Amino acid sequence: MNYPSKHIADSVAEFKKLPGIGEKTALRLVLHLLKQETAKVEQFSSVISAMRLGIKFCSICHNVSDADICSICSNTMRDQSMVCVVESLREVIAIENTGVYQGTYHVLGGLISPIDGVGPDELNINSLVKRIQFGEVREVIMALSPTMDGDTTIFYVSKKIQPYNIKVTSIARGVSFGGELEYTDELTLARSIATRLPYESYLVK
Amino acid sequence: MNYPSKHIADSVAEFKKLPGIGEKTALRLVLHLLKQETAKVEQFSSVISAMRLGIKFCSICHNVSDADICSICSNTMRDQSMVCVVESLREVIAIENTGVYQGTYHVLGGLISPIDGVGPDELNINSLVKRIQFGEVREVIMALSPTMDGDTTIFYVSKKIQPYNIKVTSIARGVSFGGELEYTDELTLARSIATRLPYESYLVK
Repeated sequence: MNYPSKHIADSVAEFKKLPGIGEKTALRLVLHLLKQETAKVEQFSSVISAMRLGIKFCSICHNVSDADICSICSNTMRDQSMVCVVESLREVIAIENTGVYQGTYHVLGGLISPIDGVGPDELNINSLVKRIQFGEVREVIMALSPTMDGDTTIFYVSKKIQPYNIKVTSIARGVSFGGELEYTDELTLARSIATRLPYESYLVK
Repeated sequence: MNYPSKHIADSVAEFKKLPGIGEKTALRLVLHLLKQETAKVEQFSSVISAMRLGIKFCSICHNVSDADICSICSNTMRDQSMVCVVESLREVIAIENTGVYQGTYHVLGGLISPIDGVGPDELNINSLVKRIQFGEVREVIMALSPTMDGDTTIFYVSKKIQPYNIKVTSIARGVSFGGELEYTDELTLARSIATRLPYESYLVK
């Protein structure tokens, strides 16, 4: 597409780099910003720039943080003996927003994926092993996607921490609450029969 | 939602202000930017900031421009006696990308809309009248949406320029090329029968 201004063309090109944003959506966003007051657009760009420059990663769990140690790792009210292993920040936010988990996290920064060329060394696995080796961790909860990459990662990580003889669990896999049995895939259904629990366990309290 | 960093929360809030972007999409965009190199994010924000600060509006047609007079109004190869009246920049870009129009534009900056409280004085109508009064305009083509607001605007503008006795036309309204007759609404169908032309007019050359 041709644009009547280089500023418009450049801005559209920048927005198009974002995931899920094509040329038409990019143009819509640019035209929206164009209608805003200069100060508001200035704020938009400065907040985003400050975010990338100012963000820190917690030196313990690798979660994003405004300080060297994140608010979860430094919170003495939380159970520091429980570590929930997640792929990324996204899962930390999702689990935190459920409000039921009182332990800490460990952000791997990805999953082991031979197809995408991601090996264990590119993930924050060694720092997890060190946390277990020198810390007071009693249980590691694997909260990874139930996919091939997720399972490969669970397998690798659990092998690595096996020597320290701590409890390794995984978040439950089964039929979604509110889901319809007839639309559930066969693997999930078959596994959810094999891993059944007393029905009281599933009652929402 | 709670976020582990104020930078993340602020950036999500900024993206959420854009049209069609909710909290989840905003977070996805922020996490994407977080994974990019600092220089790339810096470029993203500076391009957008420069766009809003550097953009000019053509003093003749109100189209966006990098100079005081846009590249269309200053192009002597284009027919300056033909003015296509459009709602916004978006339509200029759409028509320019068809590559068939060789005249100039006039960007109204909106449509007259009693419901939204937009009156004629808030639109670039007086400058259009001046262009006609003091210029060499022979034809004004109304390229506005076939809606109540569009028709109200066409009616108002045509009344305003009536004294100068120039040709006022509208882009054709009818069944879309490639559209199926059975899915066309009745009003379009009825009007397209009433405004029929010799079939040769519609053959794609």
